[in-house]
Amino acid sequence: MSAIEVLFLSKEDVDSLELSLEDMLDAVEMGLDAHGRKDVLLPSKDHIPLDWPQNIFNILKGYVGPIRSVGVKVLGDFSRNHEHGLPSELSTLLLIRPETGAPYAIVNSTAITWMRTGAVTAMGAKHLARKDSKVLGHIGARGTSWYNVAMMDHIFDFDEIRGTSKRPESRERFCRIMTERLGKEVRVMDNCLDTVRDADIIIDASRLTEEEVLVPDSAVKPGALLQAYGAVLSVERTLPFSVDKFVVDDWNQCHTSKYGTFAGMIQEGAIRDEHIYGEIGEVVAGLKPGRESDEERILFWHKGFAVSDIVLGHLAYEKAKERGVGTPLTYFASPRDE
Amino acid sequence: MSAIEVLFLSKEDVDSLELSLEDMLDAVEMGLDAHGRKDVLLPSKDHIPLDWPQNIFNILKGYVGPIRSVGVKVLGDFSRNHEHGLPSELSTLLLIRPETGAPYAIVNSTAITWMRTGAVTAMGAKHLARKDSKVLGHIGARGTSWYNVAMMDHIFDFDEIRGTSKRPESRERFCRIMTERLGKEVRVMDNCLDTVRDADIIIDASRLTEEEVLVPDSAVKPGALLQAYGAVLSVERTLPFSVDKFVVDDWNQCHTSKYGTFAGMIQEGAIRDEHIYGEIGEVVAGLKPGRESDEERILFWHKGFAVSDIVLGHLAYEKAKERGVGTPLTYFASPRDE
Repeated sequence: MSAIEVLFLSKEDVDSLELSLEDMLDAVEMGLDAHGRKDVLLPSKDHIPLDWPQNIFNILKGYVGPIRSVGVKVLGDFSRNHEHGLPSELSTLLLIRPETGAPYAIVNSTAITWMRTGAVTAMGAKHLARKDSKVLGHIGARGTSWYNVAMMDHIFDFDEIRGTSKRPESRERFCRIMTERLGKEVRVMDNCLDTVRDADIIIDASRLTEEEVLVPDSAVKPGALLQAYGAVLSVERTLPFSVDKFVVDDWNQCHTSKYGTFAGMIQEGAIRDEHIYGEIGEVVAGLKPGRESDEERILFWHKGFAVSDIVLGHLAYEKAKERGVGTPLTYFASPRDE
Repeated sequence: MSAIEVLFLSKEDVDSLELSLEDMLDAVEMGLDAHGRKDVLLPSKDHIPLDWPQNIFNILKGYVGPIRSVGVKVLGDFSRNHEHGLPSELSTLLLIRPETGAPYAIVNSTAITWMRTGAVTAMGAKHLARKDSKVLGHIGARGTSWYNVAMMDHIFDFDEIRGTSKRPESRERFCRIMTERLGKEVRVMDNCLDTVRDADIIIDASRLTEEEVLVPDSAVKPGALLQAYGAVLSVERTLPFSVDKFVVDDWNQCHTSKYGTFAGMIQEGAIRDEHIYGEIGEVVAGLKPGRESDEERILFWHKGFAVSDIVLGHLAYEKAKERGVGTPLTYFASPRDE
C-alpha cells in the first residue's frame, strides 16, 4: 500500500478559499436531501460537559452517502473565549474514507461551522419562509450570524434587516460590517423585541447562559418563520405548541442530546413526536411539503448535525486540492499490516 | 491572542519516539488511577457502524484531570484491511486544551491504540494475576498483541509464552519476531485450546467476526487471570458467572455501548451490576483490593477507553516536543473574536 496522505487546512487556509455562497448552499442542500432520503448515517452527537453552559465540547459524527465520506467534528463551545480574543467556538473536522478508515483531511472547521449553520438557516428559510419575505429580524452578532444574514439576503434580497445582540460594541460592529458587505443598511437595534416584532423571518442566534424570553410568542406574526438555535431557551415555552409547524433537523438527535434550546422540554416530555411536523431533510427531499400557506407560523429548530459539516468540509477539501491550498501531511509513510 | 499552533505526529513520528515500556505503563497507570478517583470525564464511546463487525468506527473521548487534557480518538476498525496491506485499526487522536477548546496535538494514534491496549492488559495482569504467574497463553497476532506480550513479560518475566492466531503465516511471524525481541522462546501453537489450557494468564485478543468458543471455561484453571477483549464473544456464556471476580474498565461504558465481547450479554440483561466486582481504576487507586487469593479465577474485560489514549497521546506529544519530532502546524494564525 502506498503512503497515506492527509491534507491539513488551517483557519486561514479555509478563509483563503473564499467559498461562494452558491457552492456552500448547494453542498448543504445536497446534504439535507441525503439526510431526508436516509443516505446518511448519523449517530447522536455527544458532549464532554466540562462546565456547561460556559464550556462544553460537542462531538458530531456521521457518514454522507453521495460523497462517500465519514466525518467527525470536535467543537469546543466556550462562551467566555471572547475574553481571550478567541471565537467562542473552535473546531476541528476529521474526514475519513469509508473504505479503509484512513483519514484524508483535517480541517480547522471553525469557519465551516459558521458557514454550515448559516447555510442550514438559509435552507430553512428557503423551504419554510414565505417566498415574499422582506423583513429579517436577527439576534446575535458572532460566528454563525455573518453567514445567516449573508446567505438569507442572497436568497431573499430583503427590504429591511434588523440586527441586535447583547453587547453594544458587538452589535454595532456586526451591523456596520454587514451593511458594507451587503451594500444595504443592516439596522442596529438596541433590544430584541423591536428587532423581531412582526418580521417575516426571525432568527435567534443568541448565546444565553440562562433562560430568558427574547422572542415573545406575540412578536411572531402570522406567516412568519422563526428559527431559534442558541444553547439555552430564549422563547416562551408555549411557542412550540402555538405554531402551525415545528420542523427540526434530526428528531432522533433532538431526543438523545440533552443540550440546546428545546432539549429540556423534550427531555421532560413536554415536546413529543406528535408536536413535530417533520425534518428539514424530508422537506428538502420533497418527501413532505414545506410551507403550505401564507398564514402559517413555522418554527424551525436546528441543533446542527455532522452531515452539514461533512459536506462543507469536503467542499473545502476539494477546492483546496484544486488550488494547492493547505499543508499535505504524511499520515502513514509505509503502511503495513502489523 | 497569539497564533494557535498544533503539533502533528504521523505513524512514523510516533514510532521514532521509541517510548519506553516503563513510561507507557506509568502513564497508563496514572490514567487508571485518575479514573478510579473520578478525576476524569468519560462520556460513553460511540460508533459509526458502517458494516459491523467488518467495518466500524469507534469514537472515544474524555478529559483527564492530572494532565488537564481533553482528547477525542476516531478509530476505524476494518477487519479486512490486511487485504490492502493495512492494519485493521487506523486511528487519529485530537488533543485539546480544556481552557479554550484549542487543540494542541493531532496524533496518528494507530500505534498508541496498540500500546495503550497492551498497557491496560499489563496493568490488569499486574493487579489481578498471581504475582508468581509463569505461563502466558496469548491468542492474537496483530496490533495490540505485540504490546500485550512485551509489557506483560516486562512485568512477569515468564517461563513460558504460547502464542497463536487464526492465520498460520500471521502467528508464525508474530512468534518469530517476539522471540527475537524478548530473547526467549515464544512458542507458536496451532490451536487455541493448547495455547490457553492451564496458563496462569490467558489473553484473548482474537478478532472474530462470528461467535466461537476459543477459551472453554475448563481451560481456565484456579488462580488464572483471563482477559478477553475481542469484538465478538470468544468464551463460553457461563464464564462471567463461574469466575470469582469479573473486573471491567468502565461499567457505564460497558452498558451503553452495544459492541464488544460481553456487550450482548449486558444488553440482554444476563450480566448485571451484581456480577461485576469493580473497575480496574478502583483497584489501581487502592479503593478495592485486586486479587485476594492464589485460587481466585479472575476475568478482566477492557473495552478500551479514551483515558488511556489521552495519557499516551499526551506522553508522545511531550516527548516529541522535547526532541523536535513531528510537524508543527499553524491552526489559526490570527485568532480573534468574530
